[in-house]
Amino acid sequence: MEQETLTHPFDDAVALEPVGDDLWRGHTSAAYGNMVGPFGGVTAAQALSAVLRHPGLLGEPVALTVNFAAALADGPFEVQARPVRTNRSTQHWMLEIRQQGEAVLTGTAFTALRRATWDRIEHEMPAVPRAADVPRAGGPRRVEWVGRYEMRFIDGALPTTWDGQEQGDSRSRLWLRDAPPRAIDFASLTALADVFFPRVWRRRPVLVPIGTVSMTVYFHAGADQLRAAGTGYLLGQAQAQAFRGGYFDQTAQLWTEGGDLLATTHQVVYYKE
Amino acid sequence: MEQETLTHPFDDAVALEPVGDDLWRGHTSAAYGNMVGPFGGVTAAQALSAVLRHPGLLGEPVALTVNFAAALADGPFEVQARPVRTNRSTQHWMLEIRQQGEAVLTGTAFTALRRATWDRIEHEMPAVPRAADVPRAGGPRRVEWVGRYEMRFIDGALPTTWDGQEQGDSRSRLWLRDAPPRAIDFASLTALADVFFPRVWRRRPVLVPIGTVSMTVYFHAGADQLRAAGTGYLLGQAQAQAFRGGYFDQTAQLWTEGGDLLATTHQVVYYKE
Repeated sequence: MEQETLTHPFDDAVALEPVGDDLWRGHTSAAYGNMVGPFGGVTAAQALSAVLRHPGLLGEPVALTVNFAAALADGPFEVQARPVRTNRSTQHWMLEIRQQGEAVLTGTAFTALRRATWDRIEHEMPAVPRAADVPRAGGPRRVEWVGRYEMRFIDGALPTTWDGQEQGDSRSRLWLRDAPPRAIDFASLTALADVFFPRVWRRRPVLVPIGTVSMTVYFHAGADQLRAAGTGYLLGQAQAQAFRGGYFDQTAQLWTEGGDLLATTHQVVYYKE
Repeated sequence: MEQETLTHPFDDAVALEPVGDDLWRGHTSAAYGNMVGPFGGVTAAQALSAVLRHPGLLGEPVALTVNFAAALADGPFEVQARPVRTNRSTQHWMLEIRQQGEAVLTGTAFTALRRATWDRIEHEMPAVPRAADVPRAGGPRRVEWVGRYEMRFIDGALPTTWDGQEQGDSRSRLWLRDAPPRAIDFASLTALADVFFPRVWRRRPVLVPIGTVSMTVYFHAGADQLRAAGTGYLLGQAQAQAFRGGYFDQTAQLWTEGGDLLATTHQVVYYKE
């Protein structure tokens, strides 16, 4: 049985202390440690967290782009979230995370008041087994952050043999949620959008060094739909479109078990051959 | 016969004059006029153009995100392209276009020295008729910029009857290039990535007001591959994944006639119902 704690490790990770106008201080979280520095999904969530805490915030996140300019050193950092343009129902943000005065992350966010309109989910959830019927991935972990997520792979799991045998595609499908479970919000959804292991390892099982350089999340759900998703599983699907010249892309979707498309996300990732 | 001019209208449109450190002055182009203000693809290209002209530029564009904070007024503007982090082979940029001291566009760019690696195009070009066998879209134009592009729709052309009859999907496929033809470069490819008409009009033919709020382009080709593409046609494919709460997304690909995937692109667009 997992021990209950008063604070979820994710809440600890995205906690920020205000230190000035548009400026917060945060700290990398050992619970979300990666090979070098922290898991990028949590860094992206920390950047968005500053927007969400800003007293001048208008509306809810619709689009977020973050660029990873350097590996974060374990320790404190400063986040700047600056509203550069506020319209009647929309707001544009510039984001920066700094360590020792140097930018380690840059980004932009777009927030807006959502209104009810005609709506449609066009990219429908594929027919897959229910989360409860798919075994949880376990075993030893290379990196700490992977233990903060429950992952149940339907297909495209992390290779077990790194034999360089090229696969027909790079697609993965898995049920996922925070471990221990935590009600989804914009910050945790941002981190969940970065949970997929690098597509280059999936297409060609060679353990080459990789690193996300830019990531965009489009939020298709408002706070009400996120509340409805609760602590439920999300179906994540991720696939690359091209690998070339040291960079590949990833396009991904995150649906609730009920088939609600909460977010779509894209990233471009460095790889070394 | 089209009259030859010494300068292509696109080159005029993306021309910038240096006015300070990291700062340029440009001018909206009547040739690329839209319903209100200029075609956003050219505005995005103008922002990237500042990066491309910067004396400190390292490498070539890999990722670009721009956010349209307000409609540009016809007239002059200032572009700021600031390299906030320069690593050994990568560089991170923050972008801003201002008019009357107010931000009208924010963005980020990532440039890098490309190296030869193992490569693969995973999203292959669909089997479609050759560009020469597809008729060019003609007829009267609502907006000026559309005349700056040759468009040959294979499927998913702009509706001719706005009857609100919902379609099964929002996909469009078309051959496209600059009119008159112009050799593709990073700036023109950026504009081409925004050529698709709004997916909400495709899925449900109702002429609702729309406006792109954020757009990301991933460049999968370097300058050598762009040179090889020359003035050839690109196959553009665009589709939405979700429409909800006043915003929809678009995911798109741009291939050469030879099947080379030059760029993938995503955007999120406001719509009013």
